[in-house]
Amino acid sequence: MKEVAAGIDIGGTNSVVGLVEKNGNIYNTTTIPTLKYHEPRDLIYNLHISIQAMLKDAKEELQLTGIGIGAPNANYYRGSVEDPANLPWKGIIPVRAMFSEYYDLPVIITNDANAAAVGEMIYGGARGMKDFVVLTLGTGLGSGIIVNGDLVYGNSGFAGELGHMIMFPDGRQCGCGRKGCLETYVSATGICRTVSELIDKGFSPGMLNKYKPEQLNSLLISEAAEAGDKIALEAFERTAEVLAIAIANTVVFTSPEAIFLFGGLSRAGKLLMDPLKKWVAEKIMLSFKDSFKLLFSSLENKNAAVLGSSALVWKEQNNSK
Amino acid sequence: MKEVAAGIDIGGTNSVVGLVEKNGNIYNTTTIPTLKYHEPRDLIYNLHISIQAMLKDAKEELQLTGIGIGAPNANYYRGSVEDPANLPWKGIIPVRAMFSEYYDLPVIITNDANAAAVGEMIYGGARGMKDFVVLTLGTGLGSGIIVNGDLVYGNSGFAGELGHMIMFPDGRQCGCGRKGCLETYVSATGICRTVSELIDKGFSPGMLNKYKPEQLNSLLISEAAEAGDKIALEAFERTAEVLAIAIANTVVFTSPEAIFLFGGLSRAGKLLMDPLKKWVAEKIMLSFKDSFKLLFSSLENKNAAVLGSSALVWKEQNNSK
Repeated sequence: MKEVAAGIDIGGTNSVVGLVEKNGNIYNTTTIPTLKYHEPRDLIYNLHISIQAMLKDAKEELQLTGIGIGAPNANYYRGSVEDPANLPWKGIIPVRAMFSEYYDLPVIITNDANAAAVGEMIYGGARGMKDFVVLTLGTGLGSGIIVNGDLVYGNSGFAGELGHMIMFPDGRQCGCGRKGCLETYVSATGICRTVSELIDKGFSPGMLNKYKPEQLNSLLISEAAEAGDKIALEAFERTAEVLAIAIANTVVFTSPEAIFLFGGLSRAGKLLMDPLKKWVAEKIMLSFKDSFKLLFSSLENKNAAVLGSSALVWKEQNNSK
Repeated sequence: MKEVAAGIDIGGTNSVVGLVEKNGNIYNTTTIPTLKYHEPRDLIYNLHISIQAMLKDAKEELQLTGIGIGAPNANYYRGSVEDPANLPWKGIIPVRAMFSEYYDLPVIITNDANAAAVGEMIYGGARGMKDFVVLTLGTGLGSGIIVNGDLVYGNSGFAGELGHMIMFPDGRQCGCGRKGCLETYVSATGICRTVSELIDKGFSPGMLNKYKPEQLNSLLISEAAEAGDKIALEAFERTAEVLAIAIANTVVFTSPEAIFLFGGLSRAGKLLMDPLKKWVAEKIMLSFKDSFKLLFSSLENKNAAVLGSSALVWKEQNNSK
């Protein structure tokens, strides 16, 4: 009988649940539209039903060892999702307690970037590392920080919000109410804002000028950059510069062995990494120059969220040994 | 027979060694001019002789349990002091190995700000806390970061250099070769630079105008601020604003239970704390608003360095239990 963990990714549009072996082998996944359920309890019930169906449908007998959940605004200590901006739920949702009505097994919940970091540690490029950081460059910028082999949750349980480091005190308006946060520059949304600003300033008109700000997305910008569009290339350059300062500040803080880039914008690959390496060389404190690696996540994007969430279960097993 | 740890603070001018009980009671201290010894080995030998003399002179029999050392540019992992900017030594000095020639006891070395953090945890206001940060505001800005009850050393052993977070990419020239580092604004030296800038800009002339930049120090500025001098008060205001941004960025990073201010500039007390609290309220991410306390170190400044260094020994004992 094989042991599997259920990995659940609760997203703004869809939620995905999968059964995953400790070696990263995914048996099956089920996708459920998050917004179909007005009440969180109903989504949790349907995720439970999906887990049961997948266990039943498997060709061999599987033993479920625990449930790992990645969700926005999740609090590891309290096992809850709290006032998530990207979900239609209000207040504090006791997700762990809801699952515990169906399972007498470990249920671990944390935010999606933390789950990605644990996934990187258990299945990905951070295997064997004790100190590293994962930056998820999506709509916003999330982060999972590992110190001494463990996720940093801090006193509040909400540590690791590097997207909200203030980079420019009088900078761009952020959704958090403050100005100049990292994610207003370095994220899929941030690079679109940079392109719009460059267009507004009349910077070397090119193929992106035909788009209104709300039509832009990071894939269009990547394609334009590939085709040599000057605004798109300049936008990657500026994104890389701000990210390099954030990386330099991260390195003097926890001195990680590696920083992994993950998520939509990281799919730009060399378009991002080439200028980033140049800027990091310029911005990094000299004594830390060769102290860390800058890498893309080695998890496949398609199932990375499910892998990361399932990894929470194996990580907790390792810790309690 | 009482157990004591030797706490050693190796400073640019003087080195101090003391014998400390686990409850923080200091038996005796000896001060040695650091620069008297051209060879680090000779300083270590004399510190050893001082320890022996203090053990012998004590009115009761003392058992030495270990040696804790705080020193600039110390590397905990390698037990060395490496290219210290403020000491006349070059290269990598194997301080731990040098002490181990005289003692078959634990010898722990770390940088002075890390020692201050452990001191705060063992003897000071951080007792019982698992996540906190100590900022030492001296000539530069040092920091000791505690996560999950342990110092953060990171992959390199040099983590926790918050004085070198880039706050303003085109800001003041820093000794590290880069621009806009936190310590160029928030330190005894930083506030002097701010006063000089305000004088140069003709900001409301007052009692500090008679000083040349090299004559200024943070005590003079504090005294002027106490007397209502506008430049001095404005300098504290601006220092507080930059420190508040750094604190806001620290809080989203490791979400500490408290941030302690320590060292020369923190002696300004309310002059610093009042504007700091106002600016922190403005700069902190809303969801972290009530998640941490902002405090002055509760260690007496006179013996804080020796206490902090000796605490390294008790901390290591606790960890190995």
